Amino acid sequence: MSPALAGVFCAAATPLLPDLSPDLDAFATHCRALITDGCDGVALLGTTGEANSFSSDERRTILEAALAAGLAPSQLLPGTGVANIPETVALTRHALSCGVTTVVMLPPFYYKGVSDDGLFESYARVIDGVADPRLRVILYHIPQMTGLAIGHDLIARLLAAYPDTVIGIKDSAGKLENMEAMLARFPGFSILAGADPLLLPLRRMGGAGCITATSNLVARDLAFIFRHAQDPAQEAGVAAAQARINAYRDLSNSYVQIPAIKAMIARRHGHPGWALTRPPLLPTTPEEQAQLVQRLDQIDANHPGAPA
Amino acid sequence: MSPALAGVFCAAATPLLPDLSPDLDAFATHCRALITDGCDGVALLGTTGEANSFSSDERRTILEAALAAGLAPSQLLPGTGVANIPETVALTRHALSCGVTTVVMLPPFYYKGVSDDGLFESYARVIDGVADPRLRVILYHIPQMTGLAIGHDLIARLLAAYPDTVIGIKDSAGKLENMEAMLARFPGFSILAGADPLLLPLRRMGGAGCITATSNLVARDLAFIFRHAQDPAQEAGVAAAQARINAYRDLSNSYVQIPAIKAMIARRHGHPGWALTRPPLLPTTPEEQAQLVQRLDQIDANHPGAPA
Repeated sequence: MSPALAGVFCAAATPLLPDLSPDLDAFATHCRALITDGCDGVALLGTTGEANSFSSDERRTILEAALAAGLAPSQLLPGTGVANIPETVALTRHALSCGVTTVVMLPPFYYKGVSDDGLFESYARVIDGVADPRLRVILYHIPQMTGLAIGHDLIARLLAAYPDTVIGIKDSAGKLENMEAMLARFPGFSILAGADPLLLPLRRMGGAGCITATSNLVARDLAFIFRHAQDPAQEAGVAAAQARINAYRDLSNSYVQIPAIKAMIARRHGHPGWALTRPPLLPTTPEEQAQLVQRLDQIDANHPGAPA
Repeated sequence: MSPALAGVFCAAATPLLPDLSPDLDAFATHCRALITDGCDGVALLGTTGEANSFSSDERRTILEAALAAGLAPSQLLPGTGVANIPETVALTRHALSCGVTTVVMLPPFYYKGVSDDGLFESYARVIDGVADPRLRVILYHIPQMTGLAIGHDLIARLLAAYPDTVIGIKDSAGKLENMEAMLARFPGFSILAGADPLLLPLRRMGGAGCITATSNLVARDLAFIFRHAQDPAQEAGVAAAQARINAYRDLSNSYVQIPAIKAMIARRHGHPGWALTRPPLLPTTPEEQAQLVQRLDQIDANHPGAPA
């Protein structure tokens, strides 16, 4: 049973103007570049996209900018989950009104120690509130930020109640064994890795793909791995792609990750505005940016990545 | 140097209609009752008030309902901090537009591992964005929910930058030694305990008061302690009030706290709608509610509380 949704999706970062409003032109350029790189789609307005640092109005504008940039609605997987249900419903309805049917949905993330019953009821109220048979939901498991777990029994209940709607999970917890267990228990469920090093082993197990931050920079390598993970003839190319991805990821993770990713995108597009972040995240310092550029030059020299 | 703001403030719960929209009439009745009980004000739209489970529009409506109920703007301390800065600014401006000048403000709470620089910048952008000299901010330290700490060095920086605006903190972490250290370091800063058992020791140290959940039920006892904490002639009355408060608090904490508090308010007002909660919180079960009523009857029989 093949997953409902599969591919390499970019957890796109969001560029900012000097007043920290979204830079919609730069975002449009970036979205098009990601597709050219080989992304199957753009998972905008996630954690890397600083979604929860934007108002609901700004989030709508950012999604509309991606569509205006020429991306197809089917290529967009916006995050629509906020801490409260009415605005999660409204953001999800907005996506559907734009023809975008698949969304990545955080659980309501303010309260901790919430029961599975409470999380089930939350997702159920959103899905019932949206009340649109086109809706497809990717659950978003990122306990590092939410303090909540989307466990397997909760998934089973959601799949039983909404078999046509709940189609997958973005697992950003970074544990391959969790993805392996979900693959075994939920055939056809789209398991998307949130961490770049896990795309390869996940694909080899039959996982659906990834939604990662590093794909803002090395989507071509991720796309190569996605296509060739199980092809012994491409083992060397896969290894080269993975080496480049890992080098980029290790570099970003040696700083605060999201600002570092944005500084790296600033270098990529030659657009310093990309390095800006919204508080509570702060941009990398000019010293860090200079250091990052130097290290990226070294990585690019040492790691050519996937074969052309 | 006496604190800028002192008293017993109720972390008011929010009643719901069967469709889970706010029950504004029941809320108005409750707000008036809290003032009659002896509360100095109502800290609506906090954690107990399920603020982050309401949309911005709903939050505005709830604040307006408290004003329409006859409470003075100076008696209201609404929570206005959400995960993103633009909506925190908008909610704070709305409060000011209603004449409500003192707000309780969470830090942006989605990202974890945020630096003090990032939290400082977040509060600074909100205060500068609101740009109203009337604004008074109570910082909200509740690491159990936010995963973030509002530490003393951050407070010192905020006080240096905004001495007339940042006037206090609601400390819900439950550690008296933290409040003691803040009292010593920040004279005149309003330290408000988020946990009922800490009002008495905090008052004896010169702390400003409390914002607690149990005050939805036992505000008369808290007000007695607030007034008489340092009066040896009232020692027996203070002990009786504290015993009643502790019994109520221990009972609510033996369930999921917020639903239990709401079920206890349902009994108080004879209004079963009060027991409803918004997901991800779920109401107490009918069995739990029956048990709670029985136990509350026992508490009321055994603990008369503060002298009349």
